[in-house]
Amino acid sequence: MEAFFSFLERRVDDCPSLLCIGLDPHVSDLSEPTAKAARDFCLSLVKATAPYAAAFKPNAAFFEFFGPEGWSALKDVIQAIGEESARMGSLIPVILDAKRGDIASTAEAYARSAFEHLGAHAITLNPYLGFDSIQPFLGYQEKGVFLLCKTSNPGSRDLQDLSVSPLPEGEGGGVRALYEHVARLAQQWNTGDNVGLVVGATQPEALTRVRAAAPDLWFLSPGVGAQGGDLESALRSGLRKDGKGMLINVSRSIARAAEGPGLAAAELRDQILETRYSIFGK
Amino acid sequence: MEAFFSFLERRVDDCPSLLCIGLDPHVSDLSEPTAKAARDFCLSLVKATAPYAAAFKPNAAFFEFFGPEGWSALKDVIQAIGEESARMGSLIPVILDAKRGDIASTAEAYARSAFEHLGAHAITLNPYLGFDSIQPFLGYQEKGVFLLCKTSNPGSRDLQDLSVSPLPEGEGGGVRALYEHVARLAQQWNTGDNVGLVVGATQPEALTRVRAAAPDLWFLSPGVGAQGGDLESALRSGLRKDGKGMLINVSRSIARAAEGPGLAAAELRDQILETRYSIFGK
Repeated sequence: MEAFFSFLERRVDDCPSLLCIGLDPHVSDLSEPTAKAARDFCLSLVKATAPYAAAFKPNAAFFEFFGPEGWSALKDVIQAIGEESARMGSLIPVILDAKRGDIASTAEAYARSAFEHLGAHAITLNPYLGFDSIQPFLGYQEKGVFLLCKTSNPGSRDLQDLSVSPLPEGEGGGVRALYEHVARLAQQWNTGDNVGLVVGATQPEALTRVRAAAPDLWFLSPGVGAQGGDLESALRSGLRKDGKGMLINVSRSIARAAEGPGLAAAELRDQILETRYSIFGK
Repeated sequence: MEAFFSFLERRVDDCPSLLCIGLDPHVSDLSEPTAKAARDFCLSLVKATAPYAAAFKPNAAFFEFFGPEGWSALKDVIQAIGEESARMGSLIPVILDAKRGDIASTAEAYARSAFEHLGAHAITLNPYLGFDSIQPFLGYQEKGVFLLCKTSNPGSRDLQDLSVSPLPEGEGGGVRALYEHVARLAQQWNTGDNVGLVVGATQPEALTRVRAAAPDLWFLSPGVGAQGGDLESALRSGLRKDGKGMLINVSRSIARAAEGPGLAAAELRDQILETRYSIFGK
């Protein structure tokens, strides 16, 4: 059974692309406030951008917003990504952005919901409850998790930027930010090639520190475009030495692009690859 | 418009009770693995225990597990609690245990889903993303939030128990655990009488420390019963000086009680009140 990040890397190479397309059917972007409009919005975005997408990231909140019909729409969208993938002959990973975090049988229920019922390949999780809240998801060997590490919002300083010290047994002395500690935990927990991190693209210094703490992991990085993150600084700070390890997630600036989402995705995909070339020479 | 915790205290006094009944329709407890069985399980639990319930706490995961039909069932259950309340002449608050945490328009979508579409009165939230992830929920002045603070699972030590230092500007020196910092933040953020904390009942020392950091707040405390928490130590450590400020949440040991959930809830309600009397003399 192929591990999630091996599957993702295959798609990244096939495409080639480091672009993740966010599927955020915000009600203000829809032709009418219905689950059907949310589905149609996403299906047309998927169709237009699939050739350039290393992954798709539907955000559960915007579907949950529409209640039962919203959940049906979410399942339809994930299924449609599978069909579009089949047409292209290259399976595109679906990362469910749900930021779940609970324990024991509750975590198991969320995992079954995301991976078995909805058919997502990976999910974003909140690390505040610790390892046993992550473990039920890791039991799915071919699926992946991205743990929230350093987010791009102002409130990320309330907890994530705090210095933690002294460190737990066996980790030596020193002081580091909570988000760096999360990155080190994730690096330790990644024994199955299935743990990644969510690290905002807006703060290159934080990206550098997370990369130092978790040299092997894949990052899911929102914040380029709408939130003002600079692409070159982000890639320079966050990419692994092999020029991979970072998915640049973009939602609104592609969905709302004047030139249309297909052209916008193609251009951004190329821009990312060219920037990577200018940094790494490959 | 009445603030959430004023509404809760009214119910606590009316009943009187500090017992919160968890509605966790785990598939292994159902007559068959369907959303209908989950709904029936909860409706019968609500009917049997409503006279003794200070609040009900449905856990979103066990409904989400059943996809679109599960979401319909969750909405039905919340509505049924309202109808049962009306019959009794005393409205019972519904706390949606969803542990959500996201930012900006995504947090707004989760808030609308929980408060407007589902009709919950309060929600559990994860604080890792900081104040701006909580703010959209606080915008609903009559609704409440319970922030995860110190949970009862083993993994709670991975982040929550870490010592944080130095503290952010204006908070003086000293070292404290991350969960105490969360408690202090929540106490500061509670300007609208609508912020509480989730604090496990299994660790009296942690309850004491959280109570010191957040003297005014309501705690939602799971862990008595199935997880082995001792009721007297929990109440002694967690109750406010006015003998309130703590909801003891119990799910399985009531739902699965040999004598039936109604009798089990009545007994536990009485036991909580008697224990409080033995501690506070009131």
